[in-house]
Amino acid sequence: MTSAVISPLGVDSPARGLECRGCGARFPLAAQHACYECFGPLEVWYDADALATVTRAQIEAGPKNIWRYAGLLPAGQRAADRVSLDPGFTPLVRADALAAEIGLRAPLWVKDDSANPTHSFKDRVVSVALTAAKALGFTRYACASTGNLANSVAAHAARAGVPSIVFIPWDLEPGKIITTAVYGGDLVAIEGSYDDVNRLCSELVETDEFEDTAFVNVNVRPFYAEGSKTLGYEVAEQLGWRIPAQVVIPMASGELLTKVDKAFEELVAAGLAVAPEGGWKVFGAQSLGCNPIATALHAGTDVITPVKPTGIAKSLNIGDPAAGLYALEAVRRTGGWMDYASDDEIRDGIRLLARTTGVFAETAGGVTTAVTAKLVASGKLDPTLETVVYNTGEGLKTLDAVAALVGPTYRVKPSLRAAREAGLLG
Amino acid sequence: MTSAVISPLGVDSPARGLECRGCGARFPLAAQHACYECFGPLEVWYDADALATVTRAQIEAGPKNIWRYAGLLPAGQRAADRVSLDPGFTPLVRADALAAEIGLRAPLWVKDDSANPTHSFKDRVVSVALTAAKALGFTRYACASTGNLANSVAAHAARAGVPSIVFIPWDLEPGKIITTAVYGGDLVAIEGSYDDVNRLCSELVETDEFEDTAFVNVNVRPFYAEGSKTLGYEVAEQLGWRIPAQVVIPMASGELLTKVDKAFEELVAAGLAVAPEGGWKVFGAQSLGCNPIATALHAGTDVITPVKPTGIAKSLNIGDPAAGLYALEAVRRTGGWMDYASDDEIRDGIRLLARTTGVFAETAGGVTTAVTAKLVASGKLDPTLETVVYNTGEGLKTLDAVAALVGPTYRVKPSLRAAREAGLLG
Repeated sequence: MTSAVISPLGVDSPARGLECRGCGARFPLAAQHACYECFGPLEVWYDADALATVTRAQIEAGPKNIWRYAGLLPAGQRAADRVSLDPGFTPLVRADALAAEIGLRAPLWVKDDSANPTHSFKDRVVSVALTAAKALGFTRYACASTGNLANSVAAHAARAGVPSIVFIPWDLEPGKIITTAVYGGDLVAIEGSYDDVNRLCSELVETDEFEDTAFVNVNVRPFYAEGSKTLGYEVAEQLGWRIPAQVVIPMASGELLTKVDKAFEELVAAGLAVAPEGGWKVFGAQSLGCNPIATALHAGTDVITPVKPTGIAKSLNIGDPAAGLYALEAVRRTGGWMDYASDDEIRDGIRLLARTTGVFAETAGGVTTAVTAKLVASGKLDPTLETVVYNTGEGLKTLDAVAALVGPTYRVKPSLRAAREAGLLG
Repeated sequence: MTSAVISPLGVDSPARGLECRGCGARFPLAAQHACYECFGPLEVWYDADALATVTRAQIEAGPKNIWRYAGLLPAGQRAADRVSLDPGFTPLVRADALAAEIGLRAPLWVKDDSANPTHSFKDRVVSVALTAAKALGFTRYACASTGNLANSVAAHAARAGVPSIVFIPWDLEPGKIITTAVYGGDLVAIEGSYDDVNRLCSELVETDEFEDTAFVNVNVRPFYAEGSKTLGYEVAEQLGWRIPAQVVIPMASGELLTKVDKAFEELVAAGLAVAPEGGWKVFGAQSLGCNPIATALHAGTDVITPVKPTGIAKSLNIGDPAAGLYALEAVRRTGGWMDYASDDEIRDGIRLLARTTGVFAETAGGVTTAVTAKLVASGKLDPTLETVVYNTGEGLKTLDAVAALVGPTYRVKPSLRAAREAGLLG
């Protein structure tokens, strides 16, 4: 196939079709997420020649958001075609004090994706998914969500002036419910787990009534997933077009981890970035309450046994992770590892990250910080190699996690005398 | 005085001294915030020749944050000297749907400063204040805060590895307390109002025990205030170096409004931006529970009578506004106006802004949105002129304001049948 084929996603799209991650069967670009042959998950495949034409100079001349990488994404090459809050190019924060505390002797960085418009990395995937959805003719936007995705889809729809319907487990953190509902779209609380919500959405998407509805993580999931690649591109660009030796990534479905790895591969293949000596290693972080992928790795098996998630890291609570197998593959291939953190360790991780870097993460960031410390302690992370830790969400959305642990250190009446009695004056 | 004078804030600083806004007396650059002659507030004054050398090209080649305007700020010209989370260059969001709802027929924009690192415009003023404080030799960072400033100072201090001590009224929103305490600095809850907190800090700063402490909005306030100018610079640059005809700005101390106006004046004086035909008009927004500046304007007086603040817009609850007089002056001089919104109008304003723009604002943004609608309705804002509305903070910090008003629109069991019975399938 050649670049003369015109994509339904736009004349400048380098995407050429969908390819089954299981059997390799190929399909046209459309709202399809499972293989008609083997029911495996589909992934966007690109015209390699088109990707190879992208240059650093082109990227650097682009906007300071994900769309600077439009030449490597399936849709959104033209600004007018985007459905987007323009997320991305979030800070890469040097974390020397954190490195010192956990025993890393090489540069440590925190990729802080709480800086996105709705304060999680989901803005990246939603912008790409909805831009593809618009090109494919969808007129209502939807998702199954553990919270952050709900926020992002509802906000994107409000900005675009398009109706939305968002599905969440009924027991989400209040912050994530209000922050979705405030945009005025439909919000459906499902009496069940995220996996129940996801299953229902897979059924709804097949109904006539939802024919016009793009579920960002169901029927347009292949495009959605590609948005995560930008978290790989950006880190490499921010390091001066170098890929770090080690990255630690939180896992829910496992998709983010596989796409950061894919992004690094694409950058090297296109000659855009330099791989570290010995290659990069990818590490995955889960919580004790939902660790099916890490458990499979530790057991040395490819069989991921679904779990019923518990614990405070709700944004990672996917008990039946769609991309778990591919996350295992990426971690094994690169020589990385996975581990998981308890709720107490997550709370400590949030506070450690905040105290040492000024970044206030949601529970998922606490997971990643705590697991990073564990991986150093266990010798799985090499303390002499440059490492990037991904914080994917904002502490304001999961205040309850630390509410009981932090608060005023003094409470005094408004007088100098009271301040002196409280010990504020030595 | 010439640019040959070396500033204690750095060899490249264009600042030359402090000038009393009351009597015009001039003082050297130091941690001083009131005039020794008349007790009036002090403002940074610059070498006009140095400001005039700043070019658009220089600015555009700078980083995508406030430091691109370092040539117009008192400190931070060299990156290594900054104490900063690198805030700024936040989105300017085109708000056509909002304009249509409130009856504006010209372009309407929302300057969304919730995108800053700690999600309010305070990161701008704190970065400038602490950078000046470091240059002046301070080794502990502090503030009196209604919440957002506390978040920002604590986070800046954590990033810099410097101790902090932050003073807040004890009844702040839980979100703002946790989001300060999590960074691990000292947090002092004062049993009183913000004005009580502020008074106590003015006393503490004079004690030996606080000699090494920079209170960003007390002893280094003149530098702090300059950070707000960047909200004027950015809007002009984002509009293609044009100053908008009308801006609507929330008022607490009133300082932000005066500094945006000052920024526009500086840009015109330096030939960097073009003023609109007939000049720009500055509008101020307060809440019904704390409206001393707007009340003085409406009464046609210069006497601002302090009030005991009430109502949900806590970040604006300064009953004795330090820059109120100068805000009145700027609004009168430019032909603008002020108005205020009730708690219910604020809640509606938050929802209106979210629904039409995808921007979820804290109560202060609800105030500004509601007041903008009022100003259009009353004919004070010209509906045919380009208008910029400033959102200074993040909805996640004041969830309680809308918690009772928004929520799931459906609650159903996880089955297609339940979804059908709930009416989701038509």
